[in-house]
Amino acid sequence: MNMSVLGTGAVGQALAGRLTDLGHLVYMGTRSVADSLVKTDADNWGNPAIGTWIKEHPTVKLVTFTEAVEKGSDLIVFAMNGKAAFECLTAAGEPPLNGQVLIDISNPLDFSKGFPPSLFVSNTESLGEQIQNRYPKLKVVKTLNTMSNPVMVNPKLVEGDHSVFISGNDREAKVKVMRLLNSFGWEDKNMIDLGDISTARGTEMLLPLWVRLYGKLQTPLFNFNVNISRS
Amino acid sequence: MNMSVLGTGAVGQALAGRLTDLGHLVYMGTRSVADSLVKTDADNWGNPAIGTWIKEHPTVKLVTFTEAVEKGSDLIVFAMNGKAAFECLTAAGEPPLNGQVLIDISNPLDFSKGFPPSLFVSNTESLGEQIQNRYPKLKVVKTLNTMSNPVMVNPKLVEGDHSVFISGNDREAKVKVMRLLNSFGWEDKNMIDLGDISTARGTEMLLPLWVRLYGKLQTPLFNFNVNISRS
Repeated sequence: MNMSVLGTGAVGQALAGRLTDLGHLVYMGTRSVADSLVKTDADNWGNPAIGTWIKEHPTVKLVTFTEAVEKGSDLIVFAMNGKAAFECLTAAGEPPLNGQVLIDISNPLDFSKGFPPSLFVSNTESLGEQIQNRYPKLKVVKTLNTMSNPVMVNPKLVEGDHSVFISGNDREAKVKVMRLLNSFGWEDKNMIDLGDISTARGTEMLLPLWVRLYGKLQTPLFNFNVNISRS
Repeated sequence: MNMSVLGTGAVGQALAGRLTDLGHLVYMGTRSVADSLVKTDADNWGNPAIGTWIKEHPTVKLVTFTEAVEKGSDLIVFAMNGKAAFECLTAAGEPPLNGQVLIDISNPLDFSKGFPPSLFVSNTESLGEQIQNRYPKLKVVKTLNTMSNPVMVNPKLVEGDHSVFISGNDREAKVKVMRLLNSFGWEDKNMIDLGDISTARGTEMLLPLWVRLYGKLQTPLFNFNVNISRS
């Protein structure tokens, strides 16, 4: 399939790398291709800069947001910091954002007051809903936002069964995303379709706990599982 | 030990019942003993009214908030709706709230706009922190607030390993609470001490997801487990 990943950071790289390994034609969207290509300094966590990463992944096509959204006809993944959502989508342009499935894996994290981050939208609204409301023809599916990027694309990194939550208004779009999650290694029994996009409030609000657990466990390789009653 | 449970609803009943079964002398605090004794209508979920319940649990002593806080010298459990926290604690009176360990299992749920509830404090503050700030001499330990009351006092109702989170500023108070959780059936390996009371933001913000899962799973008998990486 033709897929686009918006964002060139660690999450975008993890998704684009996995999708290209799975045989998809992957477009990676960025603000400026020229600016991205000259970035070679790894980030604080040792993730390679996009200029370095793209050389090692020559099958991934680095393009502008607009071109990515036009070319990624089968699926678009929004994989940037939540803060950048509307800047990115506005740059991509409204006409192309029309009827496509957009996987939103971002979180509305606000680091402006340091660590731990707070959320810049929460409680009575979510970033997933804001994107859906701004682009009513997009089929927004919120998923994968409750775990670190290595776990997103390779759930077997974490012991035992653990859960991935799915929120969205369009049932067919959610099924399409579930099949993609299958290809990453997620089993149906560990996918929880919470309901419409308003349920993204719950998964985005999991982040403050996730961040504290990351500090406590000293590894991003963990995830939540929902255990149910003995039958 | 002498323990007090503030609150006479389903959560208070679950805790007081379990504590008295474990051999503790249990005081249950209420606004008005006379008013509570005449309540006999079960709630919407079939939980007995306090007037009915107390007759079936004659060893539990139903007293005012003030008396409960004075008598529950070893441990106080705040088991009411979060909205009632400051009304209850103000009624209990500041002098008795002095140096004791208070387990806060409440959540700041706001049902004023119907279902699903929002949180009346969240993101940059938590109810646990508000209680600790208002009563600096109390040793507030937030725990058990991320699951239903049957699971709180009997974790074996849920399959496999699952987690209970603990937040508080006082290490000794947390150890005391952990020993109580052991007596409920919680194993040390499933207790996660997140850190100081500000980490209660994370567990209180889990409630919007909990509420949606309750709707999805159609049972309150579930809980979250934190699964970590394969070692």
